[in-house]
Amino acid sequence: MTTGVRRRLGVEERRQQLIGVALELFSRRSPDEVSIDEIASAAGISRPLVYHYFPGKLSLYEAALQRAADELAARFVEPHEGPLGARLHRVMGRYFDFVDEHGPGFSALMRGGPAVGSSTTNALVDSVRQAAYVQILSHLGVTDPPARLELVVRSWISLAESTALIWLDGRRIPREELESQLVHDFAALASVSAAYDEEMGGLLRRIFKEEPADGPFADLAGRLLTLAT
Amino acid sequence: MTTGVRRRLGVEERRQQLIGVALELFSRRSPDEVSIDEIASAAGISRPLVYHYFPGKLSLYEAALQRAADELAARFVEPHEGPLGARLHRVMGRYFDFVDEHGPGFSALMRGGPAVGSSTTNALVDSVRQAAYVQILSHLGVTDPPARLELVVRSWISLAESTALIWLDGRRIPREELESQLVHDFAALASVSAAYDEEMGGLLRRIFKEEPADGPFADLAGRLLTLAT
Repeated sequence: MTTGVRRRLGVEERRQQLIGVALELFSRRSPDEVSIDEIASAAGISRPLVYHYFPGKLSLYEAALQRAADELAARFVEPHEGPLGARLHRVMGRYFDFVDEHGPGFSALMRGGPAVGSSTTNALVDSVRQAAYVQILSHLGVTDPPARLELVVRSWISLAESTALIWLDGRRIPREELESQLVHDFAALASVSAAYDEEMGGLLRRIFKEEPADGPFADLAGRLLTLAT
Repeated sequence: MTTGVRRRLGVEERRQQLIGVALELFSRRSPDEVSIDEIASAAGISRPLVYHYFPGKLSLYEAALQRAADELAARFVEPHEGPLGARLHRVMGRYFDFVDEHGPGFSALMRGGPAVGSSTTNALVDSVRQAAYVQILSHLGVTDPPARLELVVRSWISLAESTALIWLDGRRIPREELESQLVHDFAALASVSAAYDEEMGGLLRRIFKEEPADGPFADLAGRLLTLAT
């Protein structure tokens, strides 16, 4: 029985190693271009042995994507301490680290494509978006978000995705600038919503009240006032 | 020879009629749920005759999507007259008309799914995004956009998509409000970029200078100042 347990652990360890090797390859090039032969060779095993663990490239891709989704969701977790702007800014730094490490694979997945679009991969992408949404609400201290707040948070998440994708396409703007910009974009979109809705206005006032005078939100407000005059 | 030309026109007309019927069905329900039998029945022809014109459901779906993409791109076209905010606001009205008419099909396509994701459908979606991008640049009077302007315009287009998708999911916010909000979101995202970049600042000052005192941008600025105090 002990031998049996050991054998099963060995299988699981081999699977995990294979997922790691595959994720590495799927991240560096478009998944379309990565072959099972290449994954086998990088893992130092034979092609049939890869098929022993995974029935095909799609199931290995999905397992690799699951690990990437878990890794990304873990980077969204941030202590509930200190000003909100600074917390979001730290998360943006870790988000761009992830995007940077997985660039070509991230682009291929998010832009969709024959080999990367399936109901499983779509569900994984949505699970990461949902993890981001839940984290942001928890930092805002909101459990039952009004429709306008849900819209601001979810549409900002899609803005963060498209900003990262555009950055990957040529990297013509320093990523540090985009990490700050996305924090400001969040404040700007929330402000637009708050300008027309009393409930959002109250929420935003509460958040901004806790922001330090030298934080990103105050900095933005000052610059916008300069721009307006 | 005349007969031959007539016969070919007949075929093309029948194809176009079939595309119209299919688009109607693919718009009202998720394309996954629409069968060839149903399309044949709605068009008043037999199932084999549908296959005579289109080899399969995917090719008919792609043809319907091509027509929808052309229709949507046509709605982006707006005379180069009057304040920019009002122009964008009119386009947003026509955009939400389109989203409203094609709701379930639009959601299924943009959220991705087994039957709706292919390299052809992705290319069609990208062609509509590109048409929107080209229109906006032409209204801004810019031919060679700096990287930061390209980012603002492209990421705002993705914001408009996600806003429409979130609206479709329950329609909890009046669409008129979102049409205005997206105009303001554009101004807000451009302002954030301008707050940190001299070139964007100059461009934005030039645009805002031409806006009327009772236009959407001035209205937003006034409300934001109220919120900040």
